[in-house]
Amino acid sequence: MQEYYLGLDLGGTKILTGLADKNGKILARSRKDTEAKLGEEKIIANMVASIEEVLAKKNLQAEDIIALGIGSPGPLDAKKGIIIENSNLPWKNVPIVEKIEAAVGIKTLLKNDANAAALGEKWFGAGKEVDNMVYITISTGVGGGAIIKQELFSGVNDNACEIGHTVVDPDGPLCGCGNHGCLESFASGTAIARMAQEAAAEGKSKKMLDLADNIVEDVDAAICAQAAYQGDQTAKAIFAEAAFYLGIGLANLVNIFNTEMIILGGGVMKSADLFLDKAIATMRDNALPGPLEIVELREAELGSDIGLMGAIAVAMEDRLIKNG
Amino acid sequence: MQEYYLGLDLGGTKILTGLADKNGKILARSRKDTEAKLGEEKIIANMVASIEEVLAKKNLQAEDIIALGIGSPGPLDAKKGIIIENSNLPWKNVPIVEKIEAAVGIKTLLKNDANAAALGEKWFGAGKEVDNMVYITISTGVGGGAIIKQELFSGVNDNACEIGHTVVDPDGPLCGCGNHGCLESFASGTAIARMAQEAAAEGKSKKMLDLADNIVEDVDAAICAQAAYQGDQTAKAIFAEAAFYLGIGLANLVNIFNTEMIILGGGVMKSADLFLDKAIATMRDNALPGPLEIVELREAELGSDIGLMGAIAVAMEDRLIKNG
Repeated sequence: MQEYYLGLDLGGTKILTGLADKNGKILARSRKDTEAKLGEEKIIANMVASIEEVLAKKNLQAEDIIALGIGSPGPLDAKKGIIIENSNLPWKNVPIVEKIEAAVGIKTLLKNDANAAALGEKWFGAGKEVDNMVYITISTGVGGGAIIKQELFSGVNDNACEIGHTVVDPDGPLCGCGNHGCLESFASGTAIARMAQEAAAEGKSKKMLDLADNIVEDVDAAICAQAAYQGDQTAKAIFAEAAFYLGIGLANLVNIFNTEMIILGGGVMKSADLFLDKAIATMRDNALPGPLEIVELREAELGSDIGLMGAIAVAMEDRLIKNG
Repeated sequence: MQEYYLGLDLGGTKILTGLADKNGKILARSRKDTEAKLGEEKIIANMVASIEEVLAKKNLQAEDIIALGIGSPGPLDAKKGIIIENSNLPWKNVPIVEKIEAAVGIKTLLKNDANAAALGEKWFGAGKEVDNMVYITISTGVGGGAIIKQELFSGVNDNACEIGHTVVDPDGPLCGCGNHGCLESFASGTAIARMAQEAAAEGKSKKMLDLADNIVEDVDAAICAQAAYQGDQTAKAIFAEAAFYLGIGLANLVNIFNTEMIILGGGVMKSADLFLDKAIATMRDNALPGPLEIVELREAELGSDIGLMGAIAVAMEDRLIKNG
């Protein structure tokens, strides 16, 4: 009998669901709007509709599916299957696993999105050949997930590897978490946008302002990148600043996890040529020789499928470890 | 038949060897000078003499011993049994496991001292009741060892958990490793001594200078502590500075390891009342709520036996995990 798995990537604006065979090959997909503003019941109904649509596409029933994996922004309690909070979804303490299992009758597993992405890159992406890796996403925020001896390192209550909220300079900028100088406050899309808006407001970059039709609040990381590609020195300096702190964060990871591979993903990596070389050079300057000599840095391979492939890897994790 | 284990704590000035039963109870001890200056062969001869002395005390032979654990400062390659380098011992790339096994005929295992101490506190000290913990030693340097699901997390080549060399402020002081702003450069005995000497040289603390007979180079962390206990404001401020950065380092550990317990040991902890409260407050300010709510901070319990008990735990690790 064919083995089928489902993955569901729960985002603030869209729900992506995929059906995969036992090798992680996607056989069918569905995409629905999250409709977050319509509240908890509607979001869950949209998730269920997405799952049902993907099953219908291959004429499958719930009993044909071994497991469903959900990747969601956190914080969440993966073991209890509860999403504790979510800045993009208007809910608190939602027992999502229980609700989805009740609605569709498929065994359901939950992980935070960065951990799911780490599993995705481990089993289907850049980390296929290694047993130990750390995945870092550089996106709106900075998140991470570590694989140790093939297994996801979740920590005691699913909060491990919050690399974005390690402090790399206590005198640094205010972070969304309320502290100062977290890695995320220097090297995320949000941080780059903040620096770019400040520079634009201070009249330091006509180019960025111009690209944003002179609306300072519309200057974001993408505009900063575009300006940098067009030679704007201020924009380039902003990426250099982010790169430096990213390099410090990477060195700290090297010294703590002593891992085989660090994989970098997330939206900001689309402009990797603006900052990655400097980040790597800073990492090499700051990491200890012992752990540095065995670590390899790679870009994520799953691209826009990372959320979906991560969720599928969550569904398959037990099987993958056994056969890995 | 009784099960016996040996532990050997290899230090720059002394070699401590202990014989333990299967419960980790020390039955006999030996102490020898390392005589580091006399070179590799002499150091190894002293280790062997120490082992033989402890066996003789209980009238035991090599074949009565299940395993010998060695704890040594690193960097080292535990799997290969090689001490790569050691700032206190005049050797490089010494295949210590092979040499000791050849000399005494006992199965030998090697770990770096901080990792060994982590195992010691896990199995015989403050961490007995938990499966996940991080041990931090605040001593000449700052070192660490993490236990994940009862097992020592060694990393790919025995360099995991080098928390002392994670950067907490890139503009910080020069560290022994060559970088700036490592945790060790703010919150070790060496860092406290450096700050105290600077203050004494600038005439900011007559008390510290007085305690050092006006020899600036003799001002060390112990003198700084003594001055602080006697009310010297400069000395107190130095401990407060170290405490702040220690707290940042602890918060980063909490956010990365999401562990049940952090255990603090090492010589500087003898003056814990000068800095621990502030370090804990800073940790609480900077860690995320999720991992913070489940972590407990404890002082190490093994005191001056930590090196020896750590080495014994190294010898016993396989047995302890099986029976733990």
